[in-house]
Amino acid sequence: MSHKLNEIELTEFLLTESIDEVNKLIQFIHPADILIAIRQYEGFKLDLFKKLSPNIIADIIDDADDDEKYALLSIHEGIMQKKIIHEMSSDELVDLLEAVTDDEAKNIMINMDKEDVDEVTELLTYPPDSAGGIMATEFVSIKENMTIGETLHYLQKETPDVDNAYYIYVVDDNALLKGVISLRDIVINSFNVKISDIMNDNAMSIPVDMDKEEVGHIFEKYGYLTMPVVNEFMQILGIVTSDDVMEILSDEHTEDLYRLAGIKEDEKVTGSLKSAVRSRLPWLFVNLLTAILAAATVSLFEGTIQKVVALATFMPIVAGMGGNAGTQTLTIIIRSIALGEIDAKNSLKILLKEFGVGLLTGIAMGVAVAILGYLWEKNIVFGVVIGLSMVLNMVAATISGFTVPVILKKLNIDPALASAVFVTTVTDVLGFFFFLGLATLFLPYLI
Amino acid sequence: MSHKLNEIELTEFLLTESIDEVNKLIQFIHPADILIAIRQYEGFKLDLFKKLSPNIIADIIDDADDDEKYALLSIHEGIMQKKIIHEMSSDELVDLLEAVTDDEAKNIMINMDKEDVDEVTELLTYPPDSAGGIMATEFVSIKENMTIGETLHYLQKETPDVDNAYYIYVVDDNALLKGVISLRDIVINSFNVKISDIMNDNAMSIPVDMDKEEVGHIFEKYGYLTMPVVNEFMQILGIVTSDDVMEILSDEHTEDLYRLAGIKEDEKVTGSLKSAVRSRLPWLFVNLLTAILAAATVSLFEGTIQKVVALATFMPIVAGMGGNAGTQTLTIIIRSIALGEIDAKNSLKILLKEFGVGLLTGIAMGVAVAILGYLWEKNIVFGVVIGLSMVLNMVAATISGFTVPVILKKLNIDPALASAVFVTTVTDVLGFFFFLGLATLFLPYLI
Repeated sequence: MSHKLNEIELTEFLLTESIDEVNKLIQFIHPADILIAIRQYEGFKLDLFKKLSPNIIADIIDDADDDEKYALLSIHEGIMQKKIIHEMSSDELVDLLEAVTDDEAKNIMINMDKEDVDEVTELLTYPPDSAGGIMATEFVSIKENMTIGETLHYLQKETPDVDNAYYIYVVDDNALLKGVISLRDIVINSFNVKISDIMNDNAMSIPVDMDKEEVGHIFEKYGYLTMPVVNEFMQILGIVTSDDVMEILSDEHTEDLYRLAGIKEDEKVTGSLKSAVRSRLPWLFVNLLTAILAAATVSLFEGTIQKVVALATFMPIVAGMGGNAGTQTLTIIIRSIALGEIDAKNSLKILLKEFGVGLLTGIAMGVAVAILGYLWEKNIVFGVVIGLSMVLNMVAATISGFTVPVILKKLNIDPALASAVFVTTVTDVLGFFFFLGLATLFLPYLI
Repeated sequence: MSHKLNEIELTEFLLTESIDEVNKLIQFIHPADILIAIRQYEGFKLDLFKKLSPNIIADIIDDADDDEKYALLSIHEGIMQKKIIHEMSSDELVDLLEAVTDDEAKNIMINMDKEDVDEVTELLTYPPDSAGGIMATEFVSIKENMTIGETLHYLQKETPDVDNAYYIYVVDDNALLKGVISLRDIVINSFNVKISDIMNDNAMSIPVDMDKEEVGHIFEKYGYLTMPVVNEFMQILGIVTSDDVMEILSDEHTEDLYRLAGIKEDEKVTGSLKSAVRSRLPWLFVNLLTAILAAATVSLFEGTIQKVVALATFMPIVAGMGGNAGTQTLTIIIRSIALGEIDAKNSLKILLKEFGVGLLTGIAMGVAVAILGYLWEKNIVFGVVIGLSMVLNMVAATISGFTVPVILKKLNIDPALASAVFVTTVTDVLGFFFFLGLATLFLPYLI
């Protein structure tokens, strides 16, 4: 098949070809593509699965979204369902069990082997957001006194069950991690070489309680394909692979964007109206409170506005531009915090730079609006008032854009979650205050 | 070394230990960590490199930021520099050459082998953002009539040069990609088995001109560790590995966040004041123009504001809340477009849902501000005017939050780049227009 089937051709293929033909060719079609084809039928059409083997159905379920997994599994009959479950690895089973209701989980557990139940029960004790919650317990480990030849024999017996055996972990009798060796090292050395002579005896490992986002950053930094997960005694408990990590990084990306905009992380574009409203109302209410605070600031100066009504026209410019400048700074600061680029040593330098950015961009914007204000009102003091308040607010914007996320981070609050609302409150309230306050001060020259 | 050295201990170690001791232990320290230690000295202290081998220095340069690479290379003398360059793989050399000025690139090319110059010159013909621009040309390929035993012999001769030989590509005499086989398959089969009998003869490949972000999404979707890059004739040109892809996904993450906030992608938090001002001024100017548009809308109603000055107090609430609701919608839409979750089939459904979200959250916010407005002005019509304009603006916000990014995507403009400014223009202008327009209409009841 040099031509890649689209989802419609693929369902056609699954429905009409003989079971032998399907079995011969299906190994060349990725489960993620089969999933897309299957999704065309609401409720999942059972006929599409009839010619698929349990291990392929298991892969499809693993690729599916959380809210599809149980439906995909439960359309299969008792014995087939058992076979599918048997084909899933421990981390896949944990993902499945965490995606379903308690009752559904019980139904799945009934169909699991005793061994799988034990493994999964243990894995479920780790928080889902920790290294333990994402690791797989299927990995290959050997003893350091084995030779390459013995290792090859062992691999020929053991690896068919293990998907990602690119690194093999060397352990002692107590399962303590002693080192790591790559399949390449095994392939390029002669049979009588001892593992202990060629292994890397300083394998990097991940503590089982490490947050999964930090695991993602470690993979990004070091570029490994898999890493071992260990407990406090350095006993190896499982492995994390780079495809898990890509999923983590993608989820983190979504989370950052959603938190900055004030949406719940689990909102789905295809979700219900009710869930979308629930996701967005809390942030809107918080913003309403800050908007009221800004309005209260304006109300202090209603007397001034009544005398110089053009102030009402110009005041959104000062506040809005501060909001834009503040958002620019907080975005770069939040991202740099996540990438570990800000530390105690360079903080002051960055803060001073942001002050400079606020001052220089403030002067640029201030001169522009000062000229505009002067032309509009034919009053040079009006121009000076709006120009000066613009400079002040832009400086306030970049300084709060730096300090708010840095302080939130110190307090162990995700800066992406709350920075935006704090910074725009600062820029709205101060923007109105600077502009209308200066106008009140210079009122005699404005009328 | 069970204890991991921090950067200060590591520089101490590099400066004081014997060269033998350093060479023995340095292989267990990741180049990314050595880089962090080296960065402690401005201008990079040459003494820190004295005991390091060229291949480790090459790895450090590869891990370094673009603006550090040339400085890290050029502090080394002629023959050492040549050795370091010789240790770099083709994609690493391309990254290096793309990170330096033309003159610096010439200096580097002089120290390169003829073979490397040819390979790199060819790689440089591919756009940096394409699969060709990120691929490495170092990969292992074999012929399909080879046996496992012959392959193992070949690997023992060839792989020491190749970092990521977890998959081996099977090609014909014209370098046409015929299939793929994993090292695991080679390890678990007996010596006389033919490659053609066990290879996967439908290897997935990436066209050389594919955009690198799309390459990232393919890796995310399929979870592969490496993929082959092919030309239009299906000749294999190179490979892309998952660590390249993690870098792409991380860069894309930064790009999305920065574009939404209006910062240039290459702005660095540790960069100069000048570069930061240059990065941010263009967006601020664009926003100034839209702010002036919004102000012009307000100015149409100065007569009304003069009569009911409380309108000036409440008008930022209506515009601001619209901005927040619009940002929520456009964020989820932009992310869904990037993840391929929006298509022609579900667009209308999603648009209708967003209309519903705007209506329901608008009613919730509208009732709240209507009550507030009534209490503030002791005038029920004032409450109705602000409540109604809030509902209208929230609906306008969610509808524009959907349509703006979808239309930009259709026009092949990155929605993250321009959506925010369009949507906030809509919510500012319409917010002021609805509120002040309705107030003008009902003016007799407001005075």
